[in-house]
Amino acid sequence: MEIKFRSDNTAGASTEVMAGLSQVNVGTALAYGEDEISERLSARFAEIFETRVSAFVVSTGTAANAIGLAAVVPPFRSLLCHWNAHIYDTEGGAVEFFTQGARLVPLHGQLGKIEPTALASELAAGGSARLHSLPAAALSLTNLTECGTAYSVSEIEQLARTAREHNLHVHLDGARLANAVVSLGCTPAELTWRSGVEILSFGAIKNGTIDADAIVVFNRQLAMGVTERLRRAGQRIAKARFLSAQIEAYLSDELWLRNARQANRMACRLAKGIERIPGAKLHFPVDGNIIFVSLPTFCIEALRRDGMEVWHRNVDTNGAPIYRLVTSFETSAEEVDGFLNALGLAHETRKARD
Amino acid sequence: MEIKFRSDNTAGASTEVMAGLSQVNVGTALAYGEDEISERLSARFAEIFETRVSAFVVSTGTAANAIGLAAVVPPFRSLLCHWNAHIYDTEGGAVEFFTQGARLVPLHGQLGKIEPTALASELAAGGSARLHSLPAAALSLTNLTECGTAYSVSEIEQLARTAREHNLHVHLDGARLANAVVSLGCTPAELTWRSGVEILSFGAIKNGTIDADAIVVFNRQLAMGVTERLRRAGQRIAKARFLSAQIEAYLSDELWLRNARQANRMACRLAKGIERIPGAKLHFPVDGNIIFVSLPTFCIEALRRDGMEVWHRNVDTNGAPIYRLVTSFETSAEEVDGFLNALGLAHETRKARD
Amino acid sequence: MEIKFRSDNTAGASTEVMAGLSQVNVGTALAYGEDEISERLSARFAEIFETRVSAFVVSTGTAANAIGLAAVVPPFRSLLCHWNAHIYDTEGGAVEFFTQGARLVPLHGQLGKIEPTALASELAAGGSARLHSLPAAALSLTNLTECGTAYSVSEIEQLARTAREHNLHVHLDGARLANAVVSLGCTPAELTWRSGVEILSFGAIKNGTIDADAIVVFNRQLAMGVTERLRRAGQRIAKARFLSAQIEAYLSDELWLRNARQANRMACRLAKGIERIPGAKLHFPVDGNIIFVSLPTFCIEALRRDGMEVWHRNVDTNGAPIYRLVTSFETSAEEVDGFLNALGLAHETRKARD
Amino acid sequence: MEIKFRSDNTAGASTEVMAGLSQVNVGTALAYGEDEISERLSARFAEIFETRVSAFVVSTGTAANAIGLAAVVPPFRSLLCHWNAHIYDTEGGAVEFFTQGARLVPLHGQLGKIEPTALASELAAGGSARLHSLPAAALSLTNLTECGTAYSVSEIEQLARTAREHNLHVHLDGARLANAVVSLGCTPAELTWRSGVEILSFGAIKNGTIDADAIVVFNRQLAMGVTERLRRAGQRIAKARFLSAQIEAYLSDELWLRNARQANRMACRLAKGIERIPGAKLHFPVDGNIIFVSLPTFCIEALRRDGMEVWHRNVDTNGAPIYRLVTSFETSAEEVDGFLNALGLAHETRKARD
Repeated sequence: MEIKFRSDNTAGASTEVMAGLSQVNVGTALAYGEDEISERLSARFAEIFETRVSAFVVSTGTAANAIGLAAVVPPFRSLLCHWNAHIYDTEGGAVEFFTQGARLVPLHGQLGKIEPTALASELAAGGSARLHSLPAAALSLTNLTECGTAYSVSEIEQLARTAREHNLHVHLDGARLANAVVSLGCTPAELTWRSGVEILSFGAIKNGTIDADAIVVFNRQLAMGVTERLRRAGQRIAKARFLSAQIEAYLSDELWLRNARQANRMACRLAKGIERIPGAKLHFPVDGNIIFVSLPTFCIEALRRDGMEVWHRNVDTNGAPIYRLVTSFETSAEEVDGFLNALGLAHETRKARD
Repeated sequence: MEIKFRSDNTAGASTEVMAGLSQVNVGTALAYGEDEISERLSARFAEIFETRVSAFVVSTGTAANAIGLAAVVPPFRSLLCHWNAHIYDTEGGAVEFFTQGARLVPLHGQLGKIEPTALASELAAGGSARLHSLPAAALSLTNLTECGTAYSVSEIEQLARTAREHNLHVHLDGARLANAVVSLGCTPAELTWRSGVEILSFGAIKNGTIDADAIVVFNRQLAMGVTERLRRAGQRIAKARFLSAQIEAYLSDELWLRNARQANRMACRLAKGIERIPGAKLHFPVDGNIIFVSLPTFCIEALRRDGMEVWHRNVDTNGAPIYRLVTSFETSAEEVDGFLNALGLAHETRKARD
Repeated sequence: MEIKFRSDNTAGASTEVMAGLSQVNVGTALAYGEDEISERLSARFAEIFETRVSAFVVSTGTAANAIGLAAVVPPFRSLLCHWNAHIYDTEGGAVEFFTQGARLVPLHGQLGKIEPTALASELAAGGSARLHSLPAAALSLTNLTECGTAYSVSEIEQLARTAREHNLHVHLDGARLANAVVSLGCTPAELTWRSGVEILSFGAIKNGTIDADAIVVFNRQLAMGVTERLRRAGQRIAKARFLSAQIEAYLSDELWLRNARQANRMACRLAKGIERIPGAKLHFPVDGNIIFVSLPTFCIEALRRDGMEVWHRNVDTNGAPIYRLVTSFETSAEEVDGFLNALGLAHETRKARD
Repeated sequence: MEIKFRSDNTAGASTEVMAGLSQVNVGTALAYGEDEISERLSARFAEIFETRVSAFVVSTGTAANAIGLAAVVPPFRSLLCHWNAHIYDTEGGAVEFFTQGARLVPLHGQLGKIEPTALASELAAGGSARLHSLPAAALSLTNLTECGTAYSVSEIEQLARTAREHNLHVHLDGARLANAVVSLGCTPAELTWRSGVEILSFGAIKNGTIDADAIVVFNRQLAMGVTERLRRAGQRIAKARFLSAQIEAYLSDELWLRNARQANRMACRLAKGIERIPGAKLHFPVDGNIIFVSLPTFCIEALRRDGMEVWHRNVDTNGAPIYRLVTSFETSAEEVDGFLNALGLAHETRKARD
């Protein structure tokens, strides 16, 4: 029984990334990021983002988020994020650990996006109701959101502007930034620092590398806060060249965007196919590579008979499961069509029976 | 100018490890260690260590040490280690961070080994002088030591017994465990749990993997303490199969021991050659792959003229540098001999001149 | 301009407490709680609560809450409390600090009381939605609540039972426990351990002592967790006899209950008087010594002309201020009546004018 | 059996302090330090120290030290102190807890004073040997030292200058500052900020208050770091006027210096008497109110027969106990003479017997 479209984490690594890894396994190189490839990484990111940056390779997305946020949120402050944010919901308290006790204050908003009025009213309340509590030091956004939607450039701008007006730093969890960039057709710069983002978790693992993500610091005054924490966090990588080489391959020839485009296209194909199934219901616009869908019980049963499962964590207001389907750069049209066929067949069988 | 024998961290990855990595890049696999390879890893370690264990793959040795120690040392306790221990001297306070404020109490001892009397008197003092302070919860040993010497099985046994008598847990930083095992000709079991070690940082990165070390828990009651901390620590690896595959390859066909044997042999060859240079002085027995040596100034100058440097961090009582030379599984006899020839030539030139 | 009924924290100390303090200032005594008075304190609390307890004197209510909770919630777990809980809203992240990074998960409920269904659904969600996050380790209740209402014995029982079914510890913030006890007419035992409370912040400062609160541990297995943290927390009091003497006086001859009774009576008198003012609106039942009230603007203006202010932090749905009035053991009938007269006069003047 | 001269912590409170406490127990006052007395405290300290300061009242000396140090030492840095420092030896890891994981690096030195060369060589090593570790952020001195000696003004100046040259902050644990000031005959200013001290734990509890010490910040840029931590640390005192009143009484009419003078005089009288006992040996100069002494066994036995004990924690190189005798402002000449008589009598009896 295979769970189909379980996560983009279940994919392997891009061929180009594996090749980069092999090429770098020649001779010796200075450890801890003093090798050539690691040293040119910030410059490489600077090209991608069209501005000077400080970039740090880390081995997990959780480390990227938690260390980046620790650099901007002191222990006696709070940070604002969406209720569905990965840092709030899924990372086991890593932000609390790395910040050494800061508080995450979750905000509401449709489609996985923080509602500007929710942000504004929280910040207004911060001046009175939170008088004796932990004033916010940062806003953390996630793009692609956990609902699979993309914040537009102007949405990011608006939230970041409000945050900056209250002296909050702006952090972006870009675990699926590539998917958002290709979805919106904007530049990486537009979706980050030009919109007010100061520090970014640049996700690569879900979209082609093995175990190399990066912290990209646009507001370079914040870079020292990352540097000071890396070794202590167990994230100064001895053979850093191997992680840097993954990132380098990932950024070369727009591989990161090509991979994201493939994942998004497959999600789109999948969503369109599902929409045709009577009784199926998409819950959010499919801006990237994540689909949330309700499916009739007979569909689920049919999939199971074919050795396929889908995965859910949430339920709708009736307690019925909402399935999350995630495509990756490795997802093929055949795979999508096979799945859709199984669903379609289930439906026809059902119709015939009725 | 190349720094020769700078560290075993400057080596690449074993061919077998790279092959393992490539083989695993096929199709999808469950993330976060629920893949097949990751799931059989504890069993694989159990074979190596001839006992049931719980094993956890992590991406750095610092993470292995700090998470393992956090599982056995509460924040309001201390842990005993050698003054030269990597956890005390080189890891940027990672143990303080992961334990959330435990204290490292450094102990003296020749050759990088904790002197049994130093341990005993610290523990005795703990009952009176430390009355109001942080009682010790663990002893952390390092084998191979930072001086390149190996604790014998009976030395480990003796220290561990004293520790256990005072209800301390026993941790081993085995960043170079393989080098110690082949040096002593004992089994991995003898050098660890049979001698009283309860939790081990199993080093692999310095000896053949890219970025896969492991925490191996012999006292399995301690395993939950590791599990609870991994995600929070940014060490739940999404595509874990790639790290587990490295470890699997590293353990297969005794690759880990073969690699260590090569490194040790080369260190031995290097040490023997150096001993013949008049004015050179080895500071410690060369049990593994690390050599500490004083070299006449003219030797250093001659090396430099040939484009070679050696690295030092310590000085002797006269302020003269003590050089640390580290060999790895990739070190070849040619490389050693080339270096020795440069030294020998320097000496002869000098003699001729005098 | 005096702010009337601002807080029970603005009161002084009971005469009996001051006398206890003076009596103890004779000769020398062992420090750090080894004096006679401190040593008999647990026994004294055992009488009050009709069961064996371990009691620890601390100098602030925040320390009592944070240290007590740190003893039951590990850093990688969460604790459930009401949105209005003092620990969530007013203590500056002390719980996050003392637990070293645990998360506070706020729950909804009318009248400052956690809704049993909110607790149940959070705990149910904890099994699935919070799969990768911080499972709850404790439930913290507050009685008297921050709304000035009292949980009944059966309400506490119900919530505690649910918590225990999910292996949560049960903590009670009893900053105003005395006010709840006299309000409900139950015994201290019934409202605490007999209802399932395992560890209690026993408030005394707001009700008669200067700076002595206590942590009372009913589940004595949890006592060591408090002991281990006190010194480290800066709460091992050198001249402890002076704090213990305050508590002893506070518990003698039911002073604590008599003080609370006076405060509650005055709040009742105040509330009844306010209810007669047209346009005034009480927001919650007045179970103890706290009143939340909306007052017509002309009342506020009249008070100001008489040199009186009232204090607000919250607003109603129209943005109009909701005033919080708190009485204490020192509040006199004259003080209440004077305030009510000013309000009444304001109303009559108004009526005459209209 | 009474332990004589056990600690200055066993004394009560000065009559003037108790009077100050009673006077302040009138009417209501704003809580959390917004009362009149608390608000004028910084000004009062400014007079004493002849410079503007920010002062914060706290309820224990450990809280003063740990919060003050947390304001100047980030979690990923270390601080230097003497091996015998109270913060290292006796406070249960409070500094590690409040700094959230900084490391205390203990330095050697005779008489409880850090040896300037030990400081210099540690700081020099910090540039190389500690390359990968926790660079020092502060130096913490203790005056009166734990050996009962006093650093002179020029000794403080020298150490502070070295510290400042390496960009370290300078902290002073002044648990017994008053004893040092009267011993040296200098001004409080000379012994603190004029010598380079930036932040001070101003001890009062051991010398006359009940439970009020203060953090006095000379480098006022550091004051915010204290403010941000107080509430979170459980040290924002609700009825602060009662603690401030203690400090105010303690500072009035030079009570703090008069008390210290009495304690010092009694220690001097005691030391002089002991010196006359054959076989007794003083271990350090008696600059303040602490004496470390070896006493012949028959003296100890004679004391015991008279119902007196002395207390020891340390032993000399032969394993014989070294007794610590501490006088306080409450110690009388009669008490000292009675003790000396018992010793003298013991000696004479012995001589007669021999």
